[in-house]
Amino acid sequence: MPAALLQHPFMSQTALAQCNGTAMIEAMLAFELALAEAQEAHGALPEGSSRAMRDTLAAHPFDIAAIAEGIGSGGNAAIPFVKQGRAALPESLKRCWHQGATSQDVVDSALMLLMVPRLKALDALLSRCCRAGIELMRAHQDTPMVGRTLMQQALPITFGVKVAHWAIGLEQGRRRLAEVELPVQFGGAVGVHSGLGGPGWDDLGLTLMDEVAARLGLAAPVLPWHTDRQPIHALGTALDAVAGAAEKLALDVALLAQTELGEVAEPAAPGMGESSSMPHKRNPVRCALIRGAARQVHGHVSVLLNASAQPLERGLGEWHAEWAPLIDSALLLEGALEQAATLLEGLEVNPEAMRRNLAVTGGGIMAEPVAKLLVPSVGQDAAKRISAEAAETARLSGQAYAAVLDAHPELQGKLDAEAIRKASDPALYLGSSKHQVARAIAWLCAS
Amino acid sequence: MPAALLQHPFMSQTALAQCNGTAMIEAMLAFELALAEAQEAHGALPEGSSRAMRDTLAAHPFDIAAIAEGIGSGGNAAIPFVKQGRAALPESLKRCWHQGATSQDVVDSALMLLMVPRLKALDALLSRCCRAGIELMRAHQDTPMVGRTLMQQALPITFGVKVAHWAIGLEQGRRRLAEVELPVQFGGAVGVHSGLGGPGWDDLGLTLMDEVAARLGLAAPVLPWHTDRQPIHALGTALDAVAGAAEKLALDVALLAQTELGEVAEPAAPGMGESSSMPHKRNPVRCALIRGAARQVHGHVSVLLNASAQPLERGLGEWHAEWAPLIDSALLLEGALEQAATLLEGLEVNPEAMRRNLAVTGGGIMAEPVAKLLVPSVGQDAAKRISAEAAETARLSGQAYAAVLDAHPELQGKLDAEAIRKASDPALYLGSSKHQVARAIAWLCAS
Amino acid sequence: MPAALLQHPFMSQTALAQCNGTAMIEAMLAFELALAEAQEAHGALPEGSSRAMRDTLAAHPFDIAAIAEGIGSGGNAAIPFVKQGRAALPESLKRCWHQGATSQDVVDSALMLLMVPRLKALDALLSRCCRAGIELMRAHQDTPMVGRTLMQQALPITFGVKVAHWAIGLEQGRRRLAEVELPVQFGGAVGVHSGLGGPGWDDLGLTLMDEVAARLGLAAPVLPWHTDRQPIHALGTALDAVAGAAEKLALDVALLAQTELGEVAEPAAPGMGESSSMPHKRNPVRCALIRGAARQVHGHVSVLLNASAQPLERGLGEWHAEWAPLIDSALLLEGALEQAATLLEGLEVNPEAMRRNLAVTGGGIMAEPVAKLLVPSVGQDAAKRISAEAAETARLSGQAYAAVLDAHPELQGKLDAEAIRKASDPALYLGSSKHQVARAIAWLCAS
Amino acid sequence: MPAALLQHPFMSQTALAQCNGTAMIEAMLAFELALAEAQEAHGALPEGSSRAMRDTLAAHPFDIAAIAEGIGSGGNAAIPFVKQGRAALPESLKRCWHQGATSQDVVDSALMLLMVPRLKALDALLSRCCRAGIELMRAHQDTPMVGRTLMQQALPITFGVKVAHWAIGLEQGRRRLAEVELPVQFGGAVGVHSGLGGPGWDDLGLTLMDEVAARLGLAAPVLPWHTDRQPIHALGTALDAVAGAAEKLALDVALLAQTELGEVAEPAAPGMGESSSMPHKRNPVRCALIRGAARQVHGHVSVLLNASAQPLERGLGEWHAEWAPLIDSALLLEGALEQAATLLEGLEVNPEAMRRNLAVTGGGIMAEPVAKLLVPSVGQDAAKRISAEAAETARLSGQAYAAVLDAHPELQGKLDAEAIRKASDPALYLGSSKHQVARAIAWLCAS
Repeated sequence: MPAALLQHPFMSQTALAQCNGTAMIEAMLAFELALAEAQEAHGALPEGSSRAMRDTLAAHPFDIAAIAEGIGSGGNAAIPFVKQGRAALPESLKRCWHQGATSQDVVDSALMLLMVPRLKALDALLSRCCRAGIELMRAHQDTPMVGRTLMQQALPITFGVKVAHWAIGLEQGRRRLAEVELPVQFGGAVGVHSGLGGPGWDDLGLTLMDEVAARLGLAAPVLPWHTDRQPIHALGTALDAVAGAAEKLALDVALLAQTELGEVAEPAAPGMGESSSMPHKRNPVRCALIRGAARQVHGHVSVLLNASAQPLERGLGEWHAEWAPLIDSALLLEGALEQAATLLEGLEVNPEAMRRNLAVTGGGIMAEPVAKLLVPSVGQDAAKRISAEAAETARLSGQAYAAVLDAHPELQGKLDAEAIRKASDPALYLGSSKHQVARAIAWLCAS
Repeated sequence: MPAALLQHPFMSQTALAQCNGTAMIEAMLAFELALAEAQEAHGALPEGSSRAMRDTLAAHPFDIAAIAEGIGSGGNAAIPFVKQGRAALPESLKRCWHQGATSQDVVDSALMLLMVPRLKALDALLSRCCRAGIELMRAHQDTPMVGRTLMQQALPITFGVKVAHWAIGLEQGRRRLAEVELPVQFGGAVGVHSGLGGPGWDDLGLTLMDEVAARLGLAAPVLPWHTDRQPIHALGTALDAVAGAAEKLALDVALLAQTELGEVAEPAAPGMGESSSMPHKRNPVRCALIRGAARQVHGHVSVLLNASAQPLERGLGEWHAEWAPLIDSALLLEGALEQAATLLEGLEVNPEAMRRNLAVTGGGIMAEPVAKLLVPSVGQDAAKRISAEAAETARLSGQAYAAVLDAHPELQGKLDAEAIRKASDPALYLGSSKHQVARAIAWLCAS
Repeated sequence: MPAALLQHPFMSQTALAQCNGTAMIEAMLAFELALAEAQEAHGALPEGSSRAMRDTLAAHPFDIAAIAEGIGSGGNAAIPFVKQGRAALPESLKRCWHQGATSQDVVDSALMLLMVPRLKALDALLSRCCRAGIELMRAHQDTPMVGRTLMQQALPITFGVKVAHWAIGLEQGRRRLAEVELPVQFGGAVGVHSGLGGPGWDDLGLTLMDEVAARLGLAAPVLPWHTDRQPIHALGTALDAVAGAAEKLALDVALLAQTELGEVAEPAAPGMGESSSMPHKRNPVRCALIRGAARQVHGHVSVLLNASAQPLERGLGEWHAEWAPLIDSALLLEGALEQAATLLEGLEVNPEAMRRNLAVTGGGIMAEPVAKLLVPSVGQDAAKRISAEAAETARLSGQAYAAVLDAHPELQGKLDAEAIRKASDPALYLGSSKHQVARAIAWLCAS
Repeated sequence: MPAALLQHPFMSQTALAQCNGTAMIEAMLAFELALAEAQEAHGALPEGSSRAMRDTLAAHPFDIAAIAEGIGSGGNAAIPFVKQGRAALPESLKRCWHQGATSQDVVDSALMLLMVPRLKALDALLSRCCRAGIELMRAHQDTPMVGRTLMQQALPITFGVKVAHWAIGLEQGRRRLAEVELPVQFGGAVGVHSGLGGPGWDDLGLTLMDEVAARLGLAAPVLPWHTDRQPIHALGTALDAVAGAAEKLALDVALLAQTELGEVAEPAAPGMGESSSMPHKRNPVRCALIRGAARQVHGHVSVLLNASAQPLERGLGEWHAEWAPLIDSALLLEGALEQAATLLEGLEVNPEAMRRNLAVTGGGIMAEPVAKLLVPSVGQDAAKRISAEAAETARLSGQAYAAVLDAHPELQGKLDAEAIRKASDPALYLGSSKHQVARAIAWLCAS
């Protein structure tokens, strides 16, 4: 697959460089060595054996291509990896290697290890988004713009509030992700640590499981989870939640950046958003990449949802189906968040365009508050009619709504210009916008 | 749609009876009245007005069919409901009704209110599953059976451990569901409480939001969440997690109940599992219904994943797409858990069949521990060969594995019968099974 | 589930009225009677028995509620239905009823029968869409508007071309749907017509299968397809394809109807698109309903994709999971197409707004053709610079692009006004738009 | 992403080697050169220019890494590719390059070109599966085995019929795939061939589109399909249909290969199916890989379903989201079919185990035909009772069902042994099995 040309553009390049075949080998090795160390600590392996294994294997040039080729027979990377590792060890250490472990122990633990730096990176990116969001919120807590429902102009809000929603969505995702546990896997062939320990020492397996977790910086599960995939479900859906929050940001930015609206623009950069055929265009490419990534995450996570029930003591394809969707989801999300952070940090905001768009309906969006103001003077029906008529006149003639109202024959002497101006001024009809921004910032900073 | 014949069989009948059109109307009304009460408490409505509204509307026969028909014009149930409500009120109260609220406030809050009893019911069903699981675990902590990976016999486990995995999966789901928040929705037309409060009183909207939440027993969100759908994502994926755990139980039971295995059977009940054409059959119908429900939940939740990004201040179909998938997921899951609880409480366990199946390979599954035992006497290569050959002989001749080994010419005088018997006895090779059951019970009871 | 308030609004009301529990009972009965007739025709049932069964059962009041309740034990509607049918027959006919059939024969055939009128209705709706599309295409083959890529203004197209794309998508879906086969299901308990026929007469089952298909107006499959779900996959994905085409229409209409663009509007109708809180709004409700429906179809069809592999001779939940998603997909799609047809038939098109939006960039979208025109006179670099500068001046000053160019000092005497006017006139830069409309109409009418 | 270790094992290695970055570059180049040739043929480019471009670029070492890096700015591979190509051309040819084309023209056409050899390879693999299936069907048209519904033993079928179902599913998929069209993409910036041709020559764009299609061996669409994604939907869902058919095969084989059933086994090969910890095991690894691949395809195709509606004249992420899922689906499917073909060609069938399993219920599965036989002699009730009792006796005692019946006191003198033997012999109760195999073969060979 022409991955570099079709798939990698959506991903984080940093992450791609860190999360590759070599990293997977290192992670599998880290699991095996941590297991040996724990076993040695409990007298289940000769003293010094784990150190000797580490010395031999840490520098061993594992042959990734050969491992990849070997997967065909056993169905996963651990089998050929374990063989290579064993072959590299001196005779005396061969039996100390991979003792009591099964392939899924190695692969699941390695996948969790690969996720550790990814979750850290995602958290950092989400924090960047949050900080950038707070700055935008502060800068624009008083910037009026029109709120749009079903993509129709509705009533005024502030740009600060809009950013608050983006930031809250992303931060909710961050907190959800922060609670996800990455458990070690260790149960042996059928998950009950067969053949480990000895008479009166049946709990060695569980003890080792906990200790390997501690050594690797992973969580200790209640029991091995070979076919209890709740941890994968929790992880995958948390990644998807964040993807959804980023996608919301990208959707809004793309809509607000439409030529006719022009309220925001992606950060300018040399070559960014260029078209191969139209020199005048500036495409919201970051938004497109975020949305492209998020939709792929949704598809990957639907694989995980449908694979959460796995048969008996080992999946028959369900487990195998998880690997790429899980890792790809993380890499796609990291790519999306890099774009999102850049977007929020450099977003070009155009308050002037926001003001212009507030006036597009000639005041129609303010007809409701104006009508409320007129009721006492002219009655409910006339109030509604006049406020709507005047908006139409304003729209067609290009005059200000307040001016049209002020000149309206039926209103002469009934209202002072100042009251009309206030009622028809979107910037004075912002409801709880400012309080919302303050509340959002307080909540964001409480994390 | 012939729902009663095609869809309802998967759902909880109790839940279906509770969660219907009337309940939705009541929930929308509850929101409107709680809002009015909060407004009155803050002097935003005349004293006594909320009580008067409640008196008029609590007994008002809302016309569901007319509301349903009215949905076509406005696109959601709140618009015709609000109209009916207003029409039923005396003139003086009309302006107090639905003040400052928007349709989505009503519908989202009502959906959350409908979920409250569902989440309670799901929690209770999961607790039933957990209790039944613990009983089975205690009863079968020493019942050996064969563990199967990729559906091939592997090594012995206990039935207690298998149940532990089911119970842990379900309980993880229960805890995840227990942390889900059901927030009230209240933001008005564009989410900023336009027109509420007054000069110097801009925070009335947020105050009302918090108070309405408290009155309805819902959570107070940071801000209105009209297009920040993280709460829906968290709820939907938590439902899906539980569905996956139930599906795993159903898959295992169906596999173990296969005619050739016969290790468990669904609880017997008159007519249960009957076939229209084959009198001798007892179909695992509960498993089929659980799996059928869970797969539908996965589909529904994929809709929610793809709808988590909604444009600007109101979804244009994305919001609408959430309603049925969300409610149906809860009803399908509740149906699945009713089946799961019944299944676990009445599961027929056949330890005899488990023993029989442990012997199917003639000892092949014990070849590894036997080989380990033989190594000191005959060397590694011979040990492997002999243990495998003897298993094949036992399988073909129907003799016990231990007997064949005992009679093996190369082993004469090298091993006593007792050692062989022990090494070839699955019931003595259960690893950490017993400890796992104990650890699982402790964890389950710690909740 | 409050289906009438949450789910039915997306569906076709006509279809809902036709496709209900009664219709399902009738379809199951139609299958059983067609089977009996075919059997009688081959001497496998006594002469007159099928007629006698029809006479008894055609008017029999099947008790849907009892059937619904009976589903719990057997797992599908056929079992209690067959029981009720048998109970209603005189003793002599009981053995003639459901002879050689299995539940899945009844349910699958009934589902296919329910789909027959739905596919007809969908085809008719798609033809309506096509006709309305052709009318719009003819009316607007010369109506210029701006084409937008990544939601940025790009270059001119015509509204006729845009409609052509909608129509082609829908018609491609119609043709795909028209090729879908709805096969009868008849194979008996394990799909091989066990016990049917007799010595030397083993092919009776297949003969009956073909004849029942012919009597019911369904297709005859190669073999019974109890666990070969390709027909369901083909049907479900064809429904989804049409849903996608309708969704594209709705997305475009909603985008073009944005307040700031105003190029089209949904057909006006009393109450349509009203807001519960904002009197000035006209929401694109039909678009929201179409998009809401289409997204639910995608979720349903993902269930079908994941259920296409079913175990051995009968699904264990996979089959059950298909029922509601399949029927709901058809009903949702029919609802969406009713909206789509109404939308296309009554779409309000605003060529004036299209012209206005073509000028929004002040000519920026025409900078490329203008630059091409200038190259011979001023060279490549100057041409690019001047065409871009002039567009910016035009945008800021509100002058026409041609006028600004005409007045440009560097162009004096180099170009005649007419050439400039032509190069900067979007209506003269429409490429193959007109030919595309003609080609599309020819293709649409060739069906 | 450690693709070689986690994702490639599911894919076809041959396909991976063919479908890479170089192939994508070549495909993009093929499109551009075909376009230039068509333009030259119509006098739109100077004579000899297309040949000159081909001469320069065919051997040009495009820098994939630089192209990959360039994607970040423009959002797709065509933009940096076109730049590199232009830079490599002499000044005189620069303006002939990519004339009138847009990025999506290049990328979509290249993707379709990449699919051509993949569809051919898939067709060839499906033909291999079909041939292998027919051989198995012929060899086993008389091999009785038990049919299983809801995984419970039901009634006898033949192994030939089971294979027929697999083959029909795969062949249905093959025919569906064979009808999929791979259209060229060519429409320019907004899909209407802006700036191509000249006065009175507006249809040049469409003519070029048709000719480029012909030159590249792709289909000519009605119109450019930048945001009419029906072709992608048809292609993706057809791939998914085949994946489902392969998944059904894998599911059945894995179930039949269970240790306790042992009716089939995957083809033996050195190292195939080995376990890292259990030497006695032979895992159905090919089935696991097929199922793992198929489930990933379902997820990818759900992305395509949700991306079929794209906005206005160019997707904003929806298009981008298609690339990897589409190509990966093809590569995963090709991998799955390689496994499927190998599986069918080398499947180990164990008729002895099938016979053994037919006897597992002691005759229970034959109780229905036996009861039918007894009715005339002992009446309906006694017949049912005796047939069931005898089955239970046979199962517990291990005697043959016929022998138990023959010895039954109530049947003495009422039935001759031969009649009993026949009624209780599964091999004589195979219904239309043989005819089904013949019919299936005829249909398979008719393609």
